[in-house]
Amino acid sequence: MDVSANKGDAYVVGVDFGTLSARALVVRVSDGTEAGTAVGEYPHGVIDRSLTGHGELPPDWALQDPADYTGALGTVVPAALRDAGVDPGQVIGIATDFTASTCMPVLADGTPLCQLPGLAARPHAYPKLWKHHAAQPQADRINAVAHERGEKWIGRYGGKISSEWQFAKALQLLDEDFELYQRAGRWIEAADWIIWQLCGTETRNACTAGYKGIYQDGSYPSREYLAALDPRFASFADGKLAHPISPLGARAGGLTPAAAALTGLPEGIAVAIGNVDAHVTVPAAGPVAPGKMVAIMGTSICHMVNGAHLAEVPCMCGVVDGGIVAGMWGYEAGQSAVGDIFAWFTANGVPGEFAEEARRRGVPLPQLLDEKAAALPAGAHGLIALDWEGGNRSVLVDGHLSGAIVGLTLATTAPEIYRALLEATAFGTRMIIETFSTSGVPVTELVVAGGLIKSAPIMQIYADVTRQTLSVLGSAQGPALGSAIHAAVAAGAYPDVPAAAVAMGRIDRDVYRPDPARADVYDELYAEYVRLHDYFGRGANEVMHRLRAIRDRAWRAAR
Amino acid sequence: MDVSANKGDAYVVGVDFGTLSARALVVRVSDGTEAGTAVGEYPHGVIDRSLTGHGELPPDWALQDPADYTGALGTVVPAALRDAGVDPGQVIGIATDFTASTCMPVLADGTPLCQLPGLAARPHAYPKLWKHHAAQPQADRINAVAHERGEKWIGRYGGKISSEWQFAKALQLLDEDFELYQRAGRWIEAADWIIWQLCGTETRNACTAGYKGIYQDGSYPSREYLAALDPRFASFADGKLAHPISPLGARAGGLTPAAAALTGLPEGIAVAIGNVDAHVTVPAAGPVAPGKMVAIMGTSICHMVNGAHLAEVPCMCGVVDGGIVAGMWGYEAGQSAVGDIFAWFTANGVPGEFAEEARRRGVPLPQLLDEKAAALPAGAHGLIALDWEGGNRSVLVDGHLSGAIVGLTLATTAPEIYRALLEATAFGTRMIIETFSTSGVPVTELVVAGGLIKSAPIMQIYADVTRQTLSVLGSAQGPALGSAIHAAVAAGAYPDVPAAAVAMGRIDRDVYRPDPARADVYDELYAEYVRLHDYFGRGANEVMHRLRAIRDRAWRAAR
Repeated sequence: MDVSANKGDAYVVGVDFGTLSARALVVRVSDGTEAGTAVGEYPHGVIDRSLTGHGELPPDWALQDPADYTGALGTVVPAALRDAGVDPGQVIGIATDFTASTCMPVLADGTPLCQLPGLAARPHAYPKLWKHHAAQPQADRINAVAHERGEKWIGRYGGKISSEWQFAKALQLLDEDFELYQRAGRWIEAADWIIWQLCGTETRNACTAGYKGIYQDGSYPSREYLAALDPRFASFADGKLAHPISPLGARAGGLTPAAAALTGLPEGIAVAIGNVDAHVTVPAAGPVAPGKMVAIMGTSICHMVNGAHLAEVPCMCGVVDGGIVAGMWGYEAGQSAVGDIFAWFTANGVPGEFAEEARRRGVPLPQLLDEKAAALPAGAHGLIALDWEGGNRSVLVDGHLSGAIVGLTLATTAPEIYRALLEATAFGTRMIIETFSTSGVPVTELVVAGGLIKSAPIMQIYADVTRQTLSVLGSAQGPALGSAIHAAVAAGAYPDVPAAAVAMGRIDRDVYRPDPARADVYDELYAEYVRLHDYFGRGANEVMHRLRAIRDRAWRAAR
Repeated sequence: MDVSANKGDAYVVGVDFGTLSARALVVRVSDGTEAGTAVGEYPHGVIDRSLTGHGELPPDWALQDPADYTGALGTVVPAALRDAGVDPGQVIGIATDFTASTCMPVLADGTPLCQLPGLAARPHAYPKLWKHHAAQPQADRINAVAHERGEKWIGRYGGKISSEWQFAKALQLLDEDFELYQRAGRWIEAADWIIWQLCGTETRNACTAGYKGIYQDGSYPSREYLAALDPRFASFADGKLAHPISPLGARAGGLTPAAAALTGLPEGIAVAIGNVDAHVTVPAAGPVAPGKMVAIMGTSICHMVNGAHLAEVPCMCGVVDGGIVAGMWGYEAGQSAVGDIFAWFTANGVPGEFAEEARRRGVPLPQLLDEKAAALPAGAHGLIALDWEGGNRSVLVDGHLSGAIVGLTLATTAPEIYRALLEATAFGTRMIIETFSTSGVPVTELVVAGGLIKSAPIMQIYADVTRQTLSVLGSAQGPALGSAIHAAVAAGAYPDVPAAAVAMGRIDRDVYRPDPARADVYDELYAEYVRLHDYFGRGANEVMHRLRAIRDRAWRAAR
């Protein structure tokens, strides 16, 4: 199908499946204009306390109901079309992105186990959401055995496979509910399962296979390795995962009649291969190039950067051939908690006078704190903080680290601590950028995206701390726009994702520039951050681990 | 005069001169019954921003007006007598205690320089309050030269003379206003000056001479040492300080007609030698014995303990022969900020919901926080804090250290941080007790006094953390009661202070006992405290000093 002739009238739909809701965006193929959007909450949200028919879930569990995903397709796509005022007949393709690793056991035909008669009360029958953290013992085993056996792929993941990923969660299923493990014909990412629902055939995308599924150099971990984890696990990859891997932007198939009826879109239009929210955002920020880092800044930060070559970057989340864009090595790093830290402090550390002032002036409290923090001279609070309230993803890959603040005096104020926390997250990003650069993946351009870009004070701190000029993704819906770009490529409107990104991506260049005087102060503070980072994070003093153990013991004893 | 026959009818007056107010207490000699009390604020309070006729004061200055001291005598003593319903004729003696080192330049007849014509606008003519911290450069010089020359006395002060003490403040006067330095016939503690006003003759007490005046083994620092600080300073001790030293509890003289008219007390009654608020409190807690530590807990903590012998205790504030009670070696240690840290956090780190709950329930916010903190299992917050928001007095003697908190997570709440701060100050006290004990001054009994004893949750934490059974001083006016005890001894009602302490002191024994399970948890947390204490406080990482320097530079640049 050659649709390039009528690009001006053609639209695509991108659907971003988040943690609590799904958002659809209708985008014009010719120039990326966002014509309409709609958002819908999942009725079951995150299932992390109790499961109907089963009762209370253990700590660290987080499930979802797959009916919420298909249900969202039926509401947000038609609503976005109405919002856009676009005739469904003008839509030539649809693509989606998902949280990851959110993975689930299904039959060979794609039916989720939790939808089978008699299994609705079995926790292991449900998708395990990315933030299901109960598979840490399995992740520990996966890592220990990988290092014992000298598995080559472990280096591609900074030496550690996360408890959030496919293998840890599948191994937990095997350990804890072997009957269900056996009934699961397939173990699949929600990112791929939703495509199956749209086009009727199973596909596997290069992104989740690589980042979350340990698929490297054309294969999954060996049978011997898997057998060393558990003899019953030996055939896991050959059996429940095995499937050709598709490049991002490829056509998965045509929209089925059932999916067409569900979404109100024309039967047979292109459905793109699945994708992940952070990764899909990169082309939404315009031209794709090696060394261009896109930082998606929200409750956490994902740092995405493409490299022309494979390099060993210590302690990143992963590097995958074609993991962000086909033809380049996609590197991913991240900070576990960023906006989450600011929200935590705003809720727990700020005296009532500021909330009252915010009310009086009619501004949100976070904005008031941003203002007050921004009014301070750099370095004037005398504080340094470690941004590990949610653990450390990169570059230490240690979820059991915790936050610290040093330099408090009787004159220290809440806005000063708040600013120190903002700066700490910026130091964390600088640490990631410098680790990439010293490992052969130089970062030459920094683009920011996500919810935090609304705060100019925070963005300026990031520019000053990193000494980088910040460009800003020109859309509030980066992931959905990125999905739309993939839909356009799958529909044949552009030859590849980079070409579509040039036409449809949006970037405001050089919005924040570092101030040299502040950057000088931050160089000094960053040196202090690095010292404390290495002291607390690299084994000199394991106090954070011990405090966590004492804490857990105290709570257990109290219950 | 033998008054022992009619002790039952005899009373004494103790006057406690604090930082902002003076308090008089009328006490029955026979048994220490507190008959009446009155308090009066100083009209000028702390002069730390501007001085009339002079204008703004530099940072870290803190002066007082000596007319406030004599004025207070004229108001609080008569008011306390009225409150007691005691006939002034029944009063046989008066004694006072003061903040220290609060010291001042006066003429040879005791007239404060600030009361001379033309000098009212000269900052250096006024008493420098204990918390005047602008003489740090002079203290640095005093310490450097002492160590260079190997002065033996420096070891009696934990290796450091404080900027708060007599020599640093006098040297600042010499450095910055030499003309006034020359006009000052005497340089005297307010503790001794107030006695001069009561009995008409100059005296010098063993406590301030020893702790604040570097008077050791019968002499002040040598002329050679003082000349090495500044040749013009060589005769400072021989000239402006020289005077016989009087033991605590001795009679300084009889109340002058003028002082009798001022206070409403009988002319000629005993006036005791001057004393210091913390030190005078020790006999108020009953029997005086080696190894009994009295911790006076308020905005800061002073730890007072008597020893039978001289020992080298590293980094205490000082050890003085007869410094607390004649005949024993008096050891003093301290924590710069304790209640001040809790007040700082309550004002700056607690969200409005707690203030609202406190209002709704009609309890003070600090009490609410105490309750919420006390409800947590020991160790369950996963936090460790360093209690140095006001610097560290003992055992590190470093005012430029600052506070730290480690172990924060997105689930950490304000009451948890508050509890970690409470515990941190208790760890600081444990560090002091252990340092004494390992240095040959075993602490065998712990008595608490001061404003913080009102909080049962805080006291229980101190008992659990230190594994000590806490006895509590049985008076809310410990210093004034201690002064009254000294007045009784000066009046001849008891042969010495220990004897008077047995009869007049008040102690509630064994009020708080350590809980073994909590104490076990605290042993673990204390080990973490010690590690961080030594890392940040003993030179491994001077980050706190560097942060302070960055802060000071940033503020200077911004002005």
